[in-house]
Amino acid sequence: MKRDNIAAPVINRLPKYYRCVDDLYRSNCIRVSSSTLSERLGFTASQIRQDFSCFGEFGQQGYGYNVKKLRYEIQEILGMNNGFSAILVGCGNLGHALIRNFDFKRAGFELKAIFDSRPELVGAEMEGHPVRHVDTLKDYAAAAHPDVAVMTVPSDAAQETAELLAASGIRGLWNFTNRDLRLDDKGIQVENVLFSDSLMVLCYKISDDEY
Amino acid sequence: MKRDNIAAPVINRLPKYYRCVDDLYRSNCIRVSSSTLSERLGFTASQIRQDFSCFGEFGQQGYGYNVKKLRYEIQEILGMNNGFSAILVGCGNLGHALIRNFDFKRAGFELKAIFDSRPELVGAEMEGHPVRHVDTLKDYAAAAHPDVAVMTVPSDAAQETAELLAASGIRGLWNFTNRDLRLDDKGIQVENVLFSDSLMVLCYKISDDEY
Repeated sequence: MKRDNIAAPVINRLPKYYRCVDDLYRSNCIRVSSSTLSERLGFTASQIRQDFSCFGEFGQQGYGYNVKKLRYEIQEILGMNNGFSAILVGCGNLGHALIRNFDFKRAGFELKAIFDSRPELVGAEMEGHPVRHVDTLKDYAAAAHPDVAVMTVPSDAAQETAELLAASGIRGLWNFTNRDLRLDDKGIQVENVLFSDSLMVLCYKISDDEY
Repeated sequence: MKRDNIAAPVINRLPKYYRCVDDLYRSNCIRVSSSTLSERLGFTASQIRQDFSCFGEFGQQGYGYNVKKLRYEIQEILGMNNGFSAILVGCGNLGHALIRNFDFKRAGFELKAIFDSRPELVGAEMEGHPVRHVDTLKDYAAAAHPDVAVMTVPSDAAQETAELLAASGIRGLWNFTNRDLRLDDKGIQVENVLFSDSLMVLCYKISDDEY
């Protein structure tokens, strides 16, 4: 499997492939053609074959893809089988919603610990996790080496929290704060979740009706 | 301005353009070149010029783009100046987080009403909005004609809620339920917010380090 020099747009399509193939797997589908994947995903069949070919060969011309094998290969490419762990910082409404409802395991992560700074939350339980004080985060990370942190703190605590997490050896930030983080030289990976982008696309789509 | 036959990937890039240009506008920048936009966005300058050209001409060769005009044009393309209204259904943790923190106005919408079905919430106030019973949604929509609905109901209420909203004349669904909605014949636009995609991309990025 090749991982070098894969273009960002290909990488950004992989989760969509994974969700589609995982759905097929869960509905006991054994084999799937690139044209069926094309229909379900809205990408052209040749686009799909080309994307997959970036990672080496795992389809057989004319026979389609073995769903179980394809699913496993995409998991491998995405790194979902590495047993990564996550912590969450900021147990407000959004943090609570993720702790309660988000399927971390399906995305390849185990949620190990949650942190907040508010005295009224620290020490309480949230969905089975004790809420730890953010002051203990560095010591926790030194002992447990979590891989990524979910940042659901208020916007004005974003930069400070990101710096604490970077200094604690966290390798990836899943950033819900709607703030750009300045961590250029710290070798930490950041993915921003920007709700507004999809709402603006929806805005475009309903405007279209009026023309 | 042309709106027909614009490819989906171009449309999906528009919110990123908008956020970038809006940031420039807010920091009092007057004029910006496609090469500066390129640096900030990570797209090539020729990609940017090509994307913008889909909507007609609004740059001057060699002079870059007038930021204020460009911002307004992207707002117009996205339909953000149409005075669209939104309602929100499902005032759980995620709904509450959006009501409290999400800047609907910046994305071109006004949040007008919120709904839930839980007796302990109905009639209460949440961030200044009275929580209405979902049974009153259809009557509300018939009178107020909201344009889009934010769906933050539990997953197992997703399909039923989507059908109610479609039957109430809502034109766009901003779907946070993590369920695919089956509304093919109802002419309603749907944008799904799928948290997991960006977490999987983050998974890929931190895996990369290990190879």
